[in-house]
Amino acid sequence: MELADAILQGNRLALARLLTQVENDTPEGHLVLDSLYAYTGKAHLIGVTGAPGTGKSSLVNQLARVYRNPPQGHTPRRVGIVAVDPSSPFTGGAILGDRVRMRDLAGDPGVFIRSMATRGSLGGLAAATSGMVLALDAAGFEVILIETVGAGQAEVDIVRLAHTTLVVEAPGLGDEIQAIKAGILEIADLLVVNKADRPGVENTERALRGMLQLAHPVARTHGLHHGLHHGVAVTGRQPDQETVESTVWQPPVLRTVATEGTGVVELYNEIARHREYLENSGEWERREHTRLRSELEVLLQAALVARWRQTYGSQGAVQAVLERVLSRELSPWQAVTTLLDGLGE
Amino acid sequence: MELADAILQGNRLALARLLTQVENDTPEGHLVLDSLYAYTGKAHLIGVTGAPGTGKSSLVNQLARVYRNPPQGHTPRRVGIVAVDPSSPFTGGAILGDRVRMRDLAGDPGVFIRSMATRGSLGGLAAATSGMVLALDAAGFEVILIETVGAGQAEVDIVRLAHTTLVVEAPGLGDEIQAIKAGILEIADLLVVNKADRPGVENTERALRGMLQLAHPVARTHGLHHGLHHGVAVTGRQPDQETVESTVWQPPVLRTVATEGTGVVELYNEIARHREYLENSGEWERREHTRLRSELEVLLQAALVARWRQTYGSQGAVQAVLERVLSRELSPWQAVTTLLDGLGE
Repeated sequence: MELADAILQGNRLALARLLTQVENDTPEGHLVLDSLYAYTGKAHLIGVTGAPGTGKSSLVNQLARVYRNPPQGHTPRRVGIVAVDPSSPFTGGAILGDRVRMRDLAGDPGVFIRSMATRGSLGGLAAATSGMVLALDAAGFEVILIETVGAGQAEVDIVRLAHTTLVVEAPGLGDEIQAIKAGILEIADLLVVNKADRPGVENTERALRGMLQLAHPVARTHGLHHGLHHGVAVTGRQPDQETVESTVWQPPVLRTVATEGTGVVELYNEIARHREYLENSGEWERREHTRLRSELEVLLQAALVARWRQTYGSQGAVQAVLERVLSRELSPWQAVTTLLDGLGE
Repeated sequence: MELADAILQGNRLALARLLTQVENDTPEGHLVLDSLYAYTGKAHLIGVTGAPGTGKSSLVNQLARVYRNPPQGHTPRRVGIVAVDPSSPFTGGAILGDRVRMRDLAGDPGVFIRSMATRGSLGGLAAATSGMVLALDAAGFEVILIETVGAGQAEVDIVRLAHTTLVVEAPGLGDEIQAIKAGILEIADLLVVNKADRPGVENTERALRGMLQLAHPVARTHGLHHGLHHGVAVTGRQPDQETVESTVWQPPVLRTVATEGTGVVELYNEIARHREYLENSGEWERREHTRLRSELEVLLQAALVARWRQTYGSQGAVQAVLERVLSRELSPWQAVTTLLDGLGE
């Protein structure tokens, strides 16, 4: 396949064309992804999420810079950025415009940036993100930053794609924002307090640490067991802190000021440490497994609906049943049964 | 059906039991909803949404109070509140606990409050919300306030259930929050700047009005046409402002301080005005139509997957194909084709 070959050879224009196909969910796009699939699975997928106003975009840009110009002794990595904005379902225009970002990282062939706003359903958005990540992975981008705005299920669905998840907070966004993050915290591998030069940074950090203890108690207990069972604990000796840390990941809380680049190298180092943990603990494969399983299920669902529509589901049949629902003759559930039993006409 | 009868007779315990069934998506719950469905379609569904920290819960409580003790000449209404929190997908505990709210409106038999956190998929959440609203509607609650926290697609999906949508803002939550609301604004029927005693209220209001102009240009143009075509415009006369307002809804921007009850009666009046608009313009039926259609499609999708699983989709088949995806032998799309063609074993 011509487009696939061009992408594997590093043609950026070809990659951009595929990403558009993926965003528009075209059959051609699927075919190209099919033939690229065998070349994927190498990239480190990093999800970056957090409430609006936390400065995620700046942080992602700065991280990309460090991956391009890493500390001495580290290899520069090719970086893909996928910025997903699930908050704008109608306008179709991503708030985090490519143009704004391009100014930052423009002209570097080792960086590829793509923004996407919500189109249609949420499932569609996660699928498109997944397709884009796959394309970037095949194209040889070794680190892929998946950024998403918002504070709901959308975030979680997209972040589930990632190997490593960063949750970004900032001081002074109000207590309710802290509270709302409790659910998100459970998927966090690293916590970042950005805008850490602002007043209230201590409070934010304290709140995060407090919530972490609520969110990860199981992991901690499990880790202790793990340490005991792996034979490191000699008779009568308690597993020491180091042992526990090697088997269980304790999400660190980091401070950054992205606009000035402060703390970003430290964040880069912690991400590297998390990657090592993932590989050593077998968690990398486990996450890959979970991710692909849920992806498969979403695709299966979409395919089933498409197939049904093709075979039985004429718009006329659906419309006729809908009229009966509107007149309260059938409940929506009864309507579905009617449709599936082919009595819709 | 015993439970359905009890609910129609106003038994609160029966209603609470059904809501739990609905939240847990049980077959019994569906059967009860089926038999209640004929009694629904009377309630005014009001969606209340907005970013965290805007004080939505207090506003919803205050609104409920006004519906219970309305201005002279108005009939008190029975109020149902469904508070949905899509931000907490893992803990399963709603942040806006029933208990906290109960303190406010406790003991009033004309008020029924239910909170729900995210369980499983987002589609499931919207479906459960819809089922709960249906139950409250059948039970004779005339006004149903559907509150949701977050700033993403989740919100939008849930708010689509409503006849009237309030978007709540507050001063001082940062510019990015304003920006993120651009998409949400397109579904707003009323805008509320809550915490209007805080500094910056003028800026927030100005920003909202500016974005409204961006979000609703089509409606305005359409309205002008409408006015012209309805014969009110005598030859040579431009349609006046009043004519336009009677055919097109221009979302008003209101200020409230929910904690003190300030501006809540005005909000109540504007909601009443919107209801009148909906009924006079035919928009009420249109929204009902759209809502039930999308509900039907979501249910259909879920039913198709369930049916497929029952017939062909043994876990073994899915697992076998998943292994081939993990080894990069099959792409996820190829895997779906394999599964649907029944070659998965």
